Amino acid sequence: MPSRHDPHDPDSNHGTRGDDAPPTGTGTPMPHTTAFARNQWYVAAYSHEVGREELLGRTVLGEPLVFYRTEEDGTPVALHDRCVHRRFPLSESRLDGDRIVCGYHGFTYDTTGACVYVPGQKRIPRTARVTAYPVVEQDSLVWVWIGDPALADPQTVPRARHLDSPGWTTVRGMEPIDADYGLLVDNLLDLSHETYLHGGYIGTPEVAETPITTEVDEGAGIVRVSRHMDDAECPPFYARSTGIEGRITRWQDIEYHAPCLYLLHSRIAPVGVLPEADGSDPNGFHTEITYAITPSADGKVYDFWMVSRDWATDDEEVTEFLRGNNHTVVMQDVDALNLLQRTLGSERSGYQELSINIDTGGLAARRILARLVEEGDKPVEVL
Amino acid sequence: MPSRHDPHDPDSNHGTRGDDAPPTGTGTPMPHTTAFARNQWYVAAYSHEVGREELLGRTVLGEPLVFYRTEEDGTPVALHDRCVHRRFPLSESRLDGDRIVCGYHGFTYDTTGACVYVPGQKRIPRTARVTAYPVVEQDSLVWVWIGDPALADPQTVPRARHLDSPGWTTVRGMEPIDADYGLLVDNLLDLSHETYLHGGYIGTPEVAETPITTEVDEGAGIVRVSRHMDDAECPPFYARSTGIEGRITRWQDIEYHAPCLYLLHSRIAPVGVLPEADGSDPNGFHTEITYAITPSADGKVYDFWMVSRDWATDDEEVTEFLRGNNHTVVMQDVDALNLLQRTLGSERSGYQELSINIDTGGLAARRILARLVEEGDKPVEVL
Amino acid sequence: MPSRHDPHDPDSNHGTRGDDAPPTGTGTPMPHTTAFARNQWYVAAYSHEVGREELLGRTVLGEPLVFYRTEEDGTPVALHDRCVHRRFPLSESRLDGDRIVCGYHGFTYDTTGACVYVPGQKRIPRTARVTAYPVVEQDSLVWVWIGDPALADPQTVPRARHLDSPGWTTVRGMEPIDADYGLLVDNLLDLSHETYLHGGYIGTPEVAETPITTEVDEGAGIVRVSRHMDDAECPPFYARSTGIEGRITRWQDIEYHAPCLYLLHSRIAPVGVLPEADGSDPNGFHTEITYAITPSADGKVYDFWMVSRDWATDDEEVTEFLRGNNHTVVMQDVDALNLLQRTLGSERSGYQELSINIDTGGLAARRILARLVEEGDKPVEVL
Repeated sequence: MPSRHDPHDPDSNHGTRGDDAPPTGTGTPMPHTTAFARNQWYVAAYSHEVGREELLGRTVLGEPLVFYRTEEDGTPVALHDRCVHRRFPLSESRLDGDRIVCGYHGFTYDTTGACVYVPGQKRIPRTARVTAYPVVEQDSLVWVWIGDPALADPQTVPRARHLDSPGWTTVRGMEPIDADYGLLVDNLLDLSHETYLHGGYIGTPEVAETPITTEVDEGAGIVRVSRHMDDAECPPFYARSTGIEGRITRWQDIEYHAPCLYLLHSRIAPVGVLPEADGSDPNGFHTEITYAITPSADGKVYDFWMVSRDWATDDEEVTEFLRGNNHTVVMQDVDALNLLQRTLGSERSGYQELSINIDTGGLAARRILARLVEEGDKPVEVL
Repeated sequence: MPSRHDPHDPDSNHGTRGDDAPPTGTGTPMPHTTAFARNQWYVAAYSHEVGREELLGRTVLGEPLVFYRTEEDGTPVALHDRCVHRRFPLSESRLDGDRIVCGYHGFTYDTTGACVYVPGQKRIPRTARVTAYPVVEQDSLVWVWIGDPALADPQTVPRARHLDSPGWTTVRGMEPIDADYGLLVDNLLDLSHETYLHGGYIGTPEVAETPITTEVDEGAGIVRVSRHMDDAECPPFYARSTGIEGRITRWQDIEYHAPCLYLLHSRIAPVGVLPEADGSDPNGFHTEITYAITPSADGKVYDFWMVSRDWATDDEEVTEFLRGNNHTVVMQDVDALNLLQRTLGSERSGYQELSINIDTGGLAARRILARLVEEGDKPVEVL
Repeated sequence: MPSRHDPHDPDSNHGTRGDDAPPTGTGTPMPHTTAFARNQWYVAAYSHEVGREELLGRTVLGEPLVFYRTEEDGTPVALHDRCVHRRFPLSESRLDGDRIVCGYHGFTYDTTGACVYVPGQKRIPRTARVTAYPVVEQDSLVWVWIGDPALADPQTVPRARHLDSPGWTTVRGMEPIDADYGLLVDNLLDLSHETYLHGGYIGTPEVAETPITTEVDEGAGIVRVSRHMDDAECPPFYARSTGIEGRITRWQDIEYHAPCLYLLHSRIAPVGVLPEADGSDPNGFHTEITYAITPSADGKVYDFWMVSRDWATDDEEVTEFLRGNNHTVVMQDVDALNLLQRTLGSERSGYQELSINIDTGGLAARRILARLVEEGDKPVEVL
């Protein structure tokens, strides 16, 4: 059952210095990278990035992967991206129908990862095989399971239906960041940075000023952070694209499904306009901001960002405006996180952070991630 | 009391192989970097680099610092360049009057380093504070004290009055070098390299040929190296800018105040023209070449260079000529030291140097630096 | 005496997983770099790269070297590329006749490496000397001996007479590769990659399909790999440059003299045209492809490539065509090996390779190199 956290009592047992808590000893250095949680689903690509003719290479949790689609039904395939012979990346090779032909010596693999041809001899060594990974394609996303395939349950892939539903229009992109994925989790769980890092775009003074409420469902691994602004300045791009004049009611409801999926339910409406008693909300403007936070390698993360709306869905001008505007905002984060990672890399060990109320959600996320890491590292019990 | 060193007997007990001394064992590798001397004043910036509106980030002895001036009286402020919250560099932030507003989440600091605003709550954690560093602005230089602030005595900042005095005109610049600061100390203490590295500019055959005398004041941490050439070729730029025809008397008197300030008193005059008995020297041309050697991080140094003259002080053509000419010379050093650092970085451990008479000053400087490093690392006695 | 290896039974005791052999333990990681074999001759440069006026810097087996020619008879000189004084690279200096004058402080060395001048004093320290290396210039190549000079026997430098003989025309180049030299040895000993990496250039399906025979002369350190295609497609550039129409007999006879010299004797002729009974071969087209594989530093190798022909020797168009075509092919290898090295650098330790018949020659080469490394590391016996 979810527990409601007192925002004035953030948990500070996570290597950071709590609000007014005595400094933790300098003997406990903050790591510059967050460990990876195995036995989890991760977004490896957008559906449109995986094709029948081109190979797509991506590294997820340090595992090099190559993606393509079968000719017959277009099912996505994910194989380990290293030829068994001399470790050449298969993503630098070519497709021959449903088979990958290694670009160096021609070792050829089918969709199951089995080697079906080697040069210079008829007999295929029986150990010649690359790992095939469980894949689920859903809501325009290609998810891959990193860990023990026996544990992969497609039913547990979290949903983001608005990405691929009628009535919604989505703009999206992906930026690789040279930063620990934990820094991106921090960034997204605490939106008070909008006021400072994204001032003039999505940030207004009210975001930083308005206190948050945080709910944590430890068992499900979900963190919810809400900030409801009753009377706020309307960010220029919202004013321009919704036609609202004057001040607004602005709700930001974060729902983070650790480790990978981040949903931000955004609602704006003229001040005082609330949803109906039956839950419908004809006069609100709803924007679903979706992120997939996919750790690539140590200190590297893929930042998949998507912005879906249920208003002005056919207005190309609004679409192009949102595409450009959100790309700018994402790049502000990318620049800040690249800088922050370089900065942390030059810190002496033993440095400290100081957390306050706004960090309650981020600290809960770190705590859940630490548990998922631990669970993912456990040897699987034999039943 | 200063001791006069016999230039034919340089001390060779500093990890280098002395003139004809038996090689030291290969088991004592030369480090590629010189340790930092704490509890000392260092030049962090020129006065003109620190302003009321822009933040200046500099790293001194591995400490990230941010500099600006107060609105009221323009006093320079130096704070630790990391927000206490998530370590974002404050130098990438903005000023709001005399306060720095962190560019990530808006944590705000006053000139003493105290945090005066955090987002989302009224109470400021009492541990929210960044270090403020003692600063002295003097002779157009901004000095910062790295070490225990209780030991910072503004009276001990060494002077370079010619940089900011009537009767002198100065050209200057700063080049960051990717080299151990010890290599820059070596470079400047042994000017025989002018003949080879700066041939055609400030080097003539006499510089390398003329023996030096060296004086070391161990207690004050000052090394003096003098080379008096009685009958020397006039370097082209001196000939052009002073109007002297024919050969010259050329004196180079180095005065290195370890660890940071290097003064080179240069005097040229036509051959045979000496200072008067009363010490005045109306027929000599005096140039004060000042360097501040400020270690930034391991293997990185700021090379502040200044050239001041008491002749043709209003001649813009001479000023521009000296600015360009000295920049070229400095860049020859920068290129050589960058190369040398890369070279040493690929050396196997246990490599050796061979020192000769010209290195007497540099070896004394290394010895003094080693003592300052040791003193700076000592715990401060409680009185 | 050479032993003929059964191509169906490659030796698999070299850290790789043999054809169908059980996987070796994951506790024995593959190294990413091959150790260096000392007490061997290596090609450091082409004759035309070493001159009387310019200094050439090259690093061989981690030893920084500087090359030039004497004024009198043009003999190549190889000295250690570090000044004894402060380790400045002599290759960044200048020649004064047969002497190198260090570009930093003027320390001057003769062709034996003896220091003959130092600045500021008359006496030269007797330890002031840089190592001079044994050099042999032969067949348009400058070979250097890395190891104990007392063991350097010019008679043991392997020959490649076609590079500098009448009746042959050669195109050549050198590419530095950021890859372990062992990867280049692998690449060249197994030409089945031509079909995949060089398809459309020198690769045709028959290369990958035709089994090889391998002979290893362990004592002499020579590996021979032969692939005789009796009825093969003619690669476009051969068709164009020889005028042969239709299918060909194509022989590829590799002769690798470990560690540095690789010869590929290539013969093509119309199908059925064989050498005469007396060994002459007036109707065959002979191409000698020569490589010198010179380890530079860990993970870096110089790829010297030369293509010599005994046909159309005066045809400039063929020469230019071969120069461009072979450069393209070499760059395909360079790109693949740079990529492979980066790839291996990100592998977790304990990864495995899987070797098959085509690798018989490469595995034999690795075995011989391992022995040469071991012999080169042994202390020399005192007789």
